[in-house]
Formats: sequence, C-alpha cells, structure tokens
Amino acid sequence: MDSKLMLMIPGPTPVPEPVLLAMAKHPIGHRSKDFEGLLAEVRTQLKWLHQTENEVLVLASSGTGAMEAGMINFLSAGDRVLVGNNGKFGERWVKVCQAYGLQVEEVTAEWGKPIDPQAFQTLLEADTAKTIKAVILTHSETSTGVLNDLQTISGYTNAHGALMMVDAVTSLGASNVPMDAWGLDVVASGSQKGYMMPPGLGFVAVSPKAWEAYKTATLPKFYLDLGKYLKAQQKNSTPFTPPVNLFYGLKVALDMMQKEGLEAIFARHLRQRNATRAAMRAMGLPLFAADEAASPAITAVAPVGVEAEQIRATMKKRFDILLAGGQDHLKGKIFRVGHLGFVSDRDILTAISGLEATLLDLGYDQLTPGAGVAAAAAALIA
Amino acid sequence: MDSKLMLMIPGPTPVPEPVLLAMAKHPIGHRSKDFEGLLAEVRTQLKWLHQTENEVLVLASSGTGAMEAGMINFLSAGDRVLVGNNGKFGERWVKVCQAYGLQVEEVTAEWGKPIDPQAFQTLLEADTAKTIKAVILTHSETSTGVLNDLQTISGYTNAHGALMMVDAVTSLGASNVPMDAWGLDVVASGSQKGYMMPPGLGFVAVSPKAWEAYKTATLPKFYLDLGKYLKAQQKNSTPFTPPVNLFYGLKVALDMMQKEGLEAIFARHLRQRNATRAAMRAMGLPLFAADEAASPAITAVAPVGVEAEQIRATMKKRFDILLAGGQDHLKGKIFRVGHLGFVSDRDILTAISGLEATLLDLGYDQLTPGAGVAAAAAALIA
Repeated sequence: MDSKLMLMIPGPTPVPEPVLLAMAKHPIGHRSKDFEGLLAEVRTQLKWLHQTENEVLVLASSGTGAMEAGMINFLSAGDRVLVGNNGKFGERWVKVCQAYGLQVEEVTAEWGKPIDPQAFQTLLEADTAKTIKAVILTHSETSTGVLNDLQTISGYTNAHGALMMVDAVTSLGASNVPMDAWGLDVVASGSQKGYMMPPGLGFVAVSPKAWEAYKTATLPKFYLDLGKYLKAQQKNSTPFTPPVNLFYGLKVALDMMQKEGLEAIFARHLRQRNATRAAMRAMGLPLFAADEAASPAITAVAPVGVEAEQIRATMKKRFDILLAGGQDHLKGKIFRVGHLGFVSDRDILTAISGLEATLLDLGYDQLTPGAGVAAAAAALIA
Repeated sequence: MDSKLMLMIPGPTPVPEPVLLAMAKHPIGHRSKDFEGLLAEVRTQLKWLHQTENEVLVLASSGTGAMEAGMINFLSAGDRVLVGNNGKFGERWVKVCQAYGLQVEEVTAEWGKPIDPQAFQTLLEADTAKTIKAVILTHSETSTGVLNDLQTISGYTNAHGALMMVDAVTSLGASNVPMDAWGLDVVASGSQKGYMMPPGLGFVAVSPKAWEAYKTATLPKFYLDLGKYLKAQQKNSTPFTPPVNLFYGLKVALDMMQKEGLEAIFARHLRQRNATRAAMRAMGLPLFAADEAASPAITAVAPVGVEAEQIRATMKKRFDILLAGGQDHLKGKIFRVGHLGFVSDRDILTAISGLEATLLDLGYDQLTPGAGVAAAAAALIA
C-alpha cells in the first residue's frame, strides 16, 4: 500500500493537512500589501513562540543556514569562541567556525552524554581578559537525543558577557526555550521540526546585545547578512524573494501552535518522550541517553540482540513507519524515534506497537508481547 | 472578489495547479530511497533545462543565494573580477563582490540599455597578465527588461580564460541559455521564474573549469559551499535538509517543461514579448528597452501623460492584475509586465485588455480603444 508513510524521524516531521493545503494556494506578490500583512502577523507569532521581544528573522534556508547566519553575523575572523560538541550538530558548528577562521575551542562530551556546564564555567571564569566572544551550543542534539543544559550554560555565559548562540533546531516548539528569560543572544531553528512545517525556512532570533556586536563584526556575508533581514522585516518585507507558499503554511502552523498553547505543547512532548522511553525499557531496549538529559524531541535506542538497521528496515517495509538511523560512528548501532512537532499520543502507541511487532518478527526474545504498548499507554495516561 | 489575483510580475510567477497540488503532499524522509529517486530524476531534468553535462546543484535559497554561492565558491579575497552593471541586479553582484573583498571593476551601461560587449573585450584583451579571474553578468536584467548579450561576452571571456558567471534568474526557462555551447562556467537561477514554481529553491550549474578553481578558492563558506552539494548530489542526496515539498513541485514543473519542449518554451516567451511590446506601441506607451535588447521575460514601460504608479494601482484594484513597479531611481517612472514562466497567450490578451481599460479609466487620451489588444492579437497570431 502506497502513500501511507508515517514519519517518526527528527525531520521532516509530519505536517498537518491545513498547513499542506495552505501551501497549495497560488503565490501572491511578495512586495504586496497582502504579503506585508501576512509577515506582520507571522512576526508577532514568532516572538510568541520564542518568548521574546526580539525580532525573529526568517530566511529561505535549512536550519544549518540559519545557524550559520546566527554565528557569522556577530563575529570576526580570529575571534575566540567556545563550541559545545557532543554530537553531529555540535561537530557541525565547529566546522562552521573553522571555515570562517574563528579560534574555536571545543567543550566536548561523549556522544550520548550531555556536556557538563561546569566545563563552560571554568573556561569562562578563567577568561578575565574577556577574549571569549561567544558560546555556541546545540540545545537538543538530534544525533543522540541528548538535551544539553542550556539554561545553566547561558547563565555562565551571561555572567561572563560573551554572546550565547543556540542551535534550537530540534528544541524550539518542543522544549522550553525562553529566549529573554534565559538571556539567549541568538536562537536558530528550522521549519521542519517543532514548527510542524515542511523544510525550507530557517529562523534566527537575535538579541540587542548581538546586534551591538553586529556593528563591528567583519566576517563576509550577503545572503546570510542578518542586518538586511532585520531592516526589511521591520517594514514587513524581506531582503530577497521569500518562499511565499511556505509562509502560507507557516501562518497556519503558528495559528495551530497558538491554539494549543506553549505549555500544552511542551507537556505533550514530555509525555510522549516519557511514554517512548518507558516502552523501550519495557521491551528491554537500552536507551542511549540518560533520563536527566533526554530530549523531548527524539529518543535514541541502542538495541542489543537485534540489529538497529534490521529494525528500521522491517518497520519501514511491514508498517511504513520511518525511523532514523545512527549517524557517523553510530551508524548501525542506534535507531532514533522522532516525537517532534505534529505527533499525537496515538502516534506513539502506533509506533510502539509497530516496533513490538517488528521485534517479534525479527525473533527478538527479550520481549513480553504487549509490554511495550502497555508501558507507553501507562505513561501517556499518567 | 477575492482569490482571483493574476500575477504579471517577474516573480513570483503563476504556478500550475499540478505543481501546487504536488506541494501539498505529505513530506517524505529526505534520506530515503524515495527521495533519492526523486532527486535522480530531477538532476537529469535540470541538465536538460541547462543544456549541459554539468551537475546543476539545488539549494534551499532565493536566486540571490544561488548567485552568491556561484560567485564565492570559485574566488578568493583580492581576486579581480569584472561585473556587468546596468540595473538593480548587476548592482547587487557588485555589492556581493565588495562584501567578500574582491577587487571589482564595473562594466556599466545606463539602466534600460544593454552593456556593450566591446567594453568587456577591451578589458579582457588588455589583461595579458590574466589577473581577471571572472566575468559576472546578469543575463536578463529584471529591473529594466534588458537582455544582455551573454553569448558574445562569454566568447570574449572564454578567449581570455576567466570564469564566466551568469545570473540567469529571469532568463533560464524563458530564453536560450545553452550552458555548454556558450561556455558558461556558473549559471545561477531561482525557482519562482521560468521554472513555474513558487520561490524557495536556488539552482547553480557549475562547469569543470569552475570546479578546478574551487580547489584553490578561499572565500569562507559553509551553507553555500557548493562542494558539499556536489558531493551529496552525485549520490542523489543533499548536504542539508532539502525543502522536500518544493522538490515535489519541481519534479512536476520540469515534467511540464519537458513536455512543452525547450524550443516551444523559448518561442512562447518571444511571441508574448513581441505581443506585449506591439501592444504598448499601439497604445502610445514608450518601451524602456530597445527591441534589440528586449528580455523575453519582462517588458518595462515608461508611460508619458499618465502615472506609472496610477496604472499599477488601478490595474490591481479594478482587475486584480499585479504589475511590478520601478526600482530605486526608476520608482514611479516605469511599470513592468512579467511574461515569464506559466503564462499563456490568453494571459497576454487579458493583461493588455485590462491595461487598455485602465488607461481609459485614468483619462489617458493617446489611445484608440481596442488598438492595444488588436496589436497583441496580431503579434500572437503571426
């Protein structure tokens, strides 16, 4: 049976029908009053989502493009930066720093473990000369399902005075990321995650402190020059032709998010994370990240006695449920369940029951049939 | 009456219903076999559209992002480049060069006039030390409706040995841009033009000679690093999450273009350009670009005895036909009719008849009622 795919990956995530249908409307001119009105509404909604007074800039790009923009607009070649690296995306921001000639110091943890905030604190407190210009952190590390302690690390960063730059790609709209309350200077995200949108839009929220740094930052940029986006957006316009149809979808998705409410959204993600983890435990499948650092967006599992890639292949073939695999050295070692964005409690039951059937099909013998679904149900109802 | 807008601007252009509906499908995983299959087909079709053996890279970006990528991947700070500048977009590429510290020399013409190829020839022939690394040219200058003589300029550039970099944003899919036959090294375009797509995808085709230059080019880049796109695309993948739904639309649009055929597409654009120009002449409205340099994608008109902005406002209000205005110093002096992409001969008759009615409504007295439509009809039938 075709066309009944179920996405349980950390992006693209499932998209609500009203969002899909909104995108199927004929484009309007992007220099029209109608588009200005649309952008004005979206700007207000994005501030709500980011819990900020700051402008949230919208780019035609992936999340990586948005995060790169959030870094390079406020730094100059040779600037010293600390980058948290405990997974594929932390590693990526190190590479961006290297590509731009920044003096990068990595603060690492093993993949699957959170980064120790004290490691940042030590480096920041030792830097009495204030040579550290920015701390760059992946909040929810998509490659491992680890949530780093952004609030604490941001506290240390603010005490020091460096800019706090955050990859919130799989945390925004899933986990609490109160930009202003936590003193975040740059928050980058992408549409195909908590936004319940297809990929294609990147978002960067920028604090006044970061805009101050922008004035003297000299890394070259044009398409990713956020000053151009700010200037235009304040007039409800864009510096370059915006993906009009994706904006239609964005408006509908943000309407849906506002209707559900931030608290309810965060609670839903936590509930589904807990249910997913309880089910994995009940099925005897080891969780890759510890409870204290478990991302509300994605759960990584390191199965024993059954191959991760076999699980993924059977889930896809038999039940058309798409799970993500491991990346780089974790390829074949873990599989990842996305529970991010437009995911209902029913979807969790579905995914877990499909996983149970898959495990039985693969001859996995550590499972009491029904135990996974029962554990998920109990956690969802709790 | 709502929802009956007619776009006659140079982008976004009208989008066929099958393309819109394709975009409303649920996203699939971008690391799936299904997406690989889609990308494999699209890659072949893009080569057909560009008349090239070279890989055509697809980015989540506007046309500007694609063009910037096409420039910065093959150059280093201090490199000497010649940039053709006879309008808003030529001016933009000068700014990109300046942002990246290139040594830029402008080859200019008045807005509304084509750039003299001899001006390039003179500079290139004088450069016996081969210090000029690239010639950057806007093929169809959207701001004025002027088509620059790309073929001749590319000939001089090839004779010299510099890279020929082309902004084909409003020429690709409207005008002949045979990449290989004309020796073009970089051809950049955007989805919301000849592609009959909404905005959101940028395209850059790259020659082997440019890839050779890539090896030693040192301008910093990451999201716009085309080497990453090439490496991934050759495996039918993407370096960053692609806008999956826009790819669905792209596939359908390219199918439609292949069905129509390149020759027919170019002939249609020329016919509609000629009809539009004939109609303007018949209505006594001065054309901004001369016949010899008239873009097949867009016609700029500099009305006398009636205000350009009044024409646009009345066209929009009475007939819901959106025309583009002038940019920068041409604001209020010209209006621009886009006849680019998914535009039928019927659309030209519609736009011209709406314009006639508008002119009559505005009390313009240089018009014999019916003369514009008659001239357009004659040109379309010819």
